[in-house]
Amino acid sequence: MALGDDNVELTNIRAPRVKAARRLAKRSFRDQDRRFVAEGPQAVREALKLDGVTLELFATAEAEQRHPDLVDEALARDLPVHRASGEVMAELSQTVTPQGLLAICRFVHVPLEEALGGDPRLVAVLAHVRDPGNAGTVMRAADAAGADSVVFTDASVDPYNGKCVRASAGSLFHLPVVIGSPVAGAVQAIKDKGLRVLAADGAGERTLDDVDLSGPTAWIFGNEAWGLPEEVRALADDVVRVPIYGQAESLNLATAAAVCLYASARAQRVP
Amino acid sequence: MALGDDNVELTNIRAPRVKAARRLAKRSFRDQDRRFVAEGPQAVREALKLDGVTLELFATAEAEQRHPDLVDEALARDLPVHRASGEVMAELSQTVTPQGLLAICRFVHVPLEEALGGDPRLVAVLAHVRDPGNAGTVMRAADAAGADSVVFTDASVDPYNGKCVRASAGSLFHLPVVIGSPVAGAVQAIKDKGLRVLAADGAGERTLDDVDLSGPTAWIFGNEAWGLPEEVRALADDVVRVPIYGQAESLNLATAAAVCLYASARAQRVP
Repeated sequence: MALGDDNVELTNIRAPRVKAARRLAKRSFRDQDRRFVAEGPQAVREALKLDGVTLELFATAEAEQRHPDLVDEALARDLPVHRASGEVMAELSQTVTPQGLLAICRFVHVPLEEALGGDPRLVAVLAHVRDPGNAGTVMRAADAAGADSVVFTDASVDPYNGKCVRASAGSLFHLPVVIGSPVAGAVQAIKDKGLRVLAADGAGERTLDDVDLSGPTAWIFGNEAWGLPEEVRALADDVVRVPIYGQAESLNLATAAAVCLYASARAQRVP
Repeated sequence: MALGDDNVELTNIRAPRVKAARRLAKRSFRDQDRRFVAEGPQAVREALKLDGVTLELFATAEAEQRHPDLVDEALARDLPVHRASGEVMAELSQTVTPQGLLAICRFVHVPLEEALGGDPRLVAVLAHVRDPGNAGTVMRAADAAGADSVVFTDASVDPYNGKCVRASAGSLFHLPVVIGSPVAGAVQAIKDKGLRVLAADGAGERTLDDVDLSGPTAWIFGNEAWGLPEEVRALADDVVRVPIYGQAESLNLATAAAVCLYASARAQRVP
């Protein structure tokens, strides 16, 4: 075991450091402290790969034994590792079945200009996406499809929401993420970088199979329930729909986004 | 309002018809009664489009006013429509925020031979998929991609699970669904119909971009956590992975399934 047996277990859910971590379940406190919680071994592993992002770790004795590599890595970096009782972990965890391990992390998002630095070829813009699970799944799909960055516009869910972090399966730590960018400004900046901007919308006149996706492309994905508002569609170079061949009315947002992003990834790579 | 004002509102959560509907939250009772609950206006609308599937409707007074077309349709078919109090609806609903409308439906799945009738060109097989949200989302994506049927093997989640029905967004009523088929038998029957069987697995040697998908194809999708077991992969003609271009370790099951199914749909249609 990496922690000495004399390491004192946190058992009091009212202890200051427990309360300081607990309040990060709320967006307003996250914004104030510029910190968030990455929960579970996968997220902790990815957070630890980045320099200076992880600030402290909480682990139950069981999790410590299950993931000695992660605890050792944190200790090697001189990070505080707190052994937590099951009750304290339940207090800190935002899940029904806590995995016994979580990291307190610094915010990792970057300014829009930085995210669009270099020569981006694939960018995902989440405009007014509200569901954290969907948003996290889109981040993960964007990462998998090799996107250069993900932009959350203002009025979108907070990517540091616990459910979003979990659904991203570590991808929040993999690619530059922008937060709170007004959609018009983001689209203009993306266009200025030479990317074609496509709005994904079930009401699009052209389908995914009718557009040339071989060039640098940014996709705008909208809200689950009501798609993209007219003013956002108007900002795009084209409004494109995923073709529906069966009787389904539409696709789930994260599913549609994955299909669009992979269509771009493929068109950019396969001759 | 479609129901007369003298229609008696169900207010007693212990009323026999409330209890009969309530027990359908459990799989064992669903299997016994061969009935399930389709919740929300979208599911109810799709259920009502099929002859003889909807057996009765429960609606709050508010839902009745919001969806008079659905209540009228049910009444026109001589179906019992029960006005339910908020408390009764909360008892029947399997969601945190009930939508005030649900239908009790007959099972709609069909035998494997029937699902594979005609000339199927795209089939989705869910092998040991356990998460109902994922399974429902795959059904919806399969429907959207124009699949001919969806096969749930034994040891997979029950497609009549409330969360699965909701995630399918009506697709459960759109295409033939098979339940409880042993995977080896299902794969053999699919091969006998001349389809190529591809197992989707992150460990596949070939990627989605390296296989010819223009012919009739069945995809096997596995469990979220551990993918497809060796014996299932061995049944397939090929094991194929969705290429990962970024740092993501893998894709969410429903996302990967959508990308595979749409790759097939496109290859079968776009020259």
